Amino acid sequence: MKTLIKGASVLLPDGSVKETNIAVDGVKIAKVGEATDFAAETVIDAKNKLALPGFVNAHTHASMTLLRSYADDMNLMDWLQNKIWPIEAKMKKDDIFWGAMLAAVEMIRTGTTTFADMYGDMEKVAEVTIESGLRGVLSRGIIGVAPNGEAALEENKKLFDDYHGAGDGRVTVMFGPHAPYTCPPDFLRRVAAIAKERKAEVHIHLAETKGEVENCLKDYGMTPIALMEETGILDCGVLGAHCVHLSDDDIALMKKYGARVAHNPGSNMKLASGVGPVPQLLKAGVCVGLGTDGASSNNNLDMLEEIRLAALLHKVDTLDPLAVPALEAVRMGTEYGAKAVGLKNLGKIEEGCLADIVLFDMSGAAWTPKFDLVSLLVYAASSADVDTVMVAGKLLMEKKQLRTLDEERVLFEANRCAERISAKI
Amino acid sequence: MKTLIKGASVLLPDGSVKETNIAVDGVKIAKVGEATDFAAETVIDAKNKLALPGFVNAHTHASMTLLRSYADDMNLMDWLQNKIWPIEAKMKKDDIFWGAMLAAVEMIRTGTTTFADMYGDMEKVAEVTIESGLRGVLSRGIIGVAPNGEAALEENKKLFDDYHGAGDGRVTVMFGPHAPYTCPPDFLRRVAAIAKERKAEVHIHLAETKGEVENCLKDYGMTPIALMEETGILDCGVLGAHCVHLSDDDIALMKKYGARVAHNPGSNMKLASGVGPVPQLLKAGVCVGLGTDGASSNNNLDMLEEIRLAALLHKVDTLDPLAVPALEAVRMGTEYGAKAVGLKNLGKIEEGCLADIVLFDMSGAAWTPKFDLVSLLVYAASSADVDTVMVAGKLLMEKKQLRTLDEERVLFEANRCAERISAKI
Repeated sequence: MKTLIKGASVLLPDGSVKETNIAVDGVKIAKVGEATDFAAETVIDAKNKLALPGFVNAHTHASMTLLRSYADDMNLMDWLQNKIWPIEAKMKKDDIFWGAMLAAVEMIRTGTTTFADMYGDMEKVAEVTIESGLRGVLSRGIIGVAPNGEAALEENKKLFDDYHGAGDGRVTVMFGPHAPYTCPPDFLRRVAAIAKERKAEVHIHLAETKGEVENCLKDYGMTPIALMEETGILDCGVLGAHCVHLSDDDIALMKKYGARVAHNPGSNMKLASGVGPVPQLLKAGVCVGLGTDGASSNNNLDMLEEIRLAALLHKVDTLDPLAVPALEAVRMGTEYGAKAVGLKNLGKIEEGCLADIVLFDMSGAAWTPKFDLVSLLVYAASSADVDTVMVAGKLLMEKKQLRTLDEERVLFEANRCAERISAKI
Repeated sequence: MKTLIKGASVLLPDGSVKETNIAVDGVKIAKVGEATDFAAETVIDAKNKLALPGFVNAHTHASMTLLRSYADDMNLMDWLQNKIWPIEAKMKKDDIFWGAMLAAVEMIRTGTTTFADMYGDMEKVAEVTIESGLRGVLSRGIIGVAPNGEAALEENKKLFDDYHGAGDGRVTVMFGPHAPYTCPPDFLRRVAAIAKERKAEVHIHLAETKGEVENCLKDYGMTPIALMEETGILDCGVLGAHCVHLSDDDIALMKKYGARVAHNPGSNMKLASGVGPVPQLLKAGVCVGLGTDGASSNNNLDMLEEIRLAALLHKVDTLDPLAVPALEAVRMGTEYGAKAVGLKNLGKIEEGCLADIVLFDMSGAAWTPKFDLVSLLVYAASSADVDTVMVAGKLLMEKKQLRTLDEERVLFEANRCAERISAKI
């Protein structure tokens, strides 16, 4: 299948924007340029559209979209113990599936093409990934201290064996030990050994709150990041979600091992976790992608919002208006995000890269006037301006019409599931 | 003209949401409830729509929308001296008009019904207010130390005499001395006297940056807020924009004089000004509304974004997840905003209030499932979901179609003006 995206304003890897064509052959970008001799079966008129690499949501819990607005503005433990955990306990495979489907609809509509997910019953999320056409980096969330810790680890192994590379390579699988405070060191050592056998990477929550770091220091005499080195997790290749509270030594360790960060500004703000040292991490050469976290702590899957928050939050936090410039924030949501979730040849619009492309409609008032398209995207636009979404050369949305999912059915089923799990009885 | 908004999910003043009707008679809300005997000429089917008071943008510079994306991610003085001031010097009345028109299109589309504006050539902004159907609280920005300081003060007087109460009362006029660092104390005393003669209020930038407060202390031995008391400005009734750097004494003074704050979280973050003590102000009983500031420092006029930022920013700043709850943030953008800009009977959906009403379409994925509509609005929705906008009983937008403005023409003229003022010659 050959598709020509014609006359788009294309954000190139060097950060410049050029009005040109993108020739897509199969799952990859064949050429960025005039491409006059490209015999395309489909031609997309992209006049007045900004073409970007699709957004990479580097940390989420897609099925939790079913819990959106169920409980907000509460203290963390009250929220978890009295609201989230009880309702999660009622979620069955059907809920996991439709929660992830709801997430898929929202992700496609807002320009996300890849998501790194961690939850239970992940084979249902794998099914959603395959059916929706999205790219998914999936891990089974494993609470080592829970009664089902061993079973969850087995499920993660099976998830890897059954789905790693599935969906024509759109599905990859990582291991998902939940966090240092829910997985003891010996358990983490076993996970590291099992992951290494499979050459699989690890997705884990790290240093999200100050309390977590203090407890880790008290229990093990080292920070969460140092504990990851000590247990061999850092050897696997790590996607660390949050990484809010880091020491200089932590940052040096992450750099040394090539560990990557999924920064979640919206979630960190809403849950009052703190502000991660993002400018410092970027300066140190640590790869920082962006994630939304789950919709019960955000409460949407809007990556453009995370890009904007990343650009704004670190300016005010450091009192430096140049802390995270617009283009750097876009890269965090695309190119760096792709690296963060362990995928190659992704996150850039250039020859040979995977054809995961988003077109923003620039016809609205918020895009007027057009002095600087990247600035407009980051500081003025809305994810509602996403017009067309392509993953691996296939259109998932065209002119705001979903092509792979039945949105009406998905919303109906999600409402049905939400009603059931929240019923008092 | 009688209009019945039927079957909406209405956000009531007590914060609850009830599915009911809103009967609008002339410019006011006649009844909120069944209203079965109301002989409406127009009936709006508001099923699956959330009805809110229209947003009040308590601080903006509408015509600067023409400078959107012209210069970003720069240090403040570099940005002002080398970019903003030179291009502003080229702006003529035609540019002021079409810049404000562009702002009006964006404000209506994103649910803003009232805006408090400060700039030059404000009679053009008054014309836009009257033509667009919006509610405007207008002030001539006066730089007392500038060569045109006296002329600007005269213009503000004339603006008051010509336009206060115009547009069937939709236009009100304040005095707009720019800031304590651009208007010396004697000048402020004269402004205060002139405003008092007219029973006009004052809109002024206060304590936006740390440097401003330090200089004020050095030059006058008192904080900007104390200087406002000393010069008589606080006696007039004051809308203070920004108020980022306040002492406990400042907050007590503001409370004593009933001064109101226009908090601009997006602008304060982008320009790295700092985080205002909003939870403390609210606790002290100071009225805090929300503003976008101008589109060259934000870069949009999206009030839902400011509401969300207000809810998120103060949580992470105070490390308290309950700092500014969702409903309080909505009130800052509506009810408190109306008070902040000095308008009565506005910002609530209740009998006798002015009929400034916005309907959000709740059919999208981000509104699913619907456990808590206020939480969905603040943490998940998009201003692109605004479907219908009414000001003073008149529809400015219905089912996403603008009723008072020719959007295509406005965007065309705004682009033409932007091109002219940014031309190198």
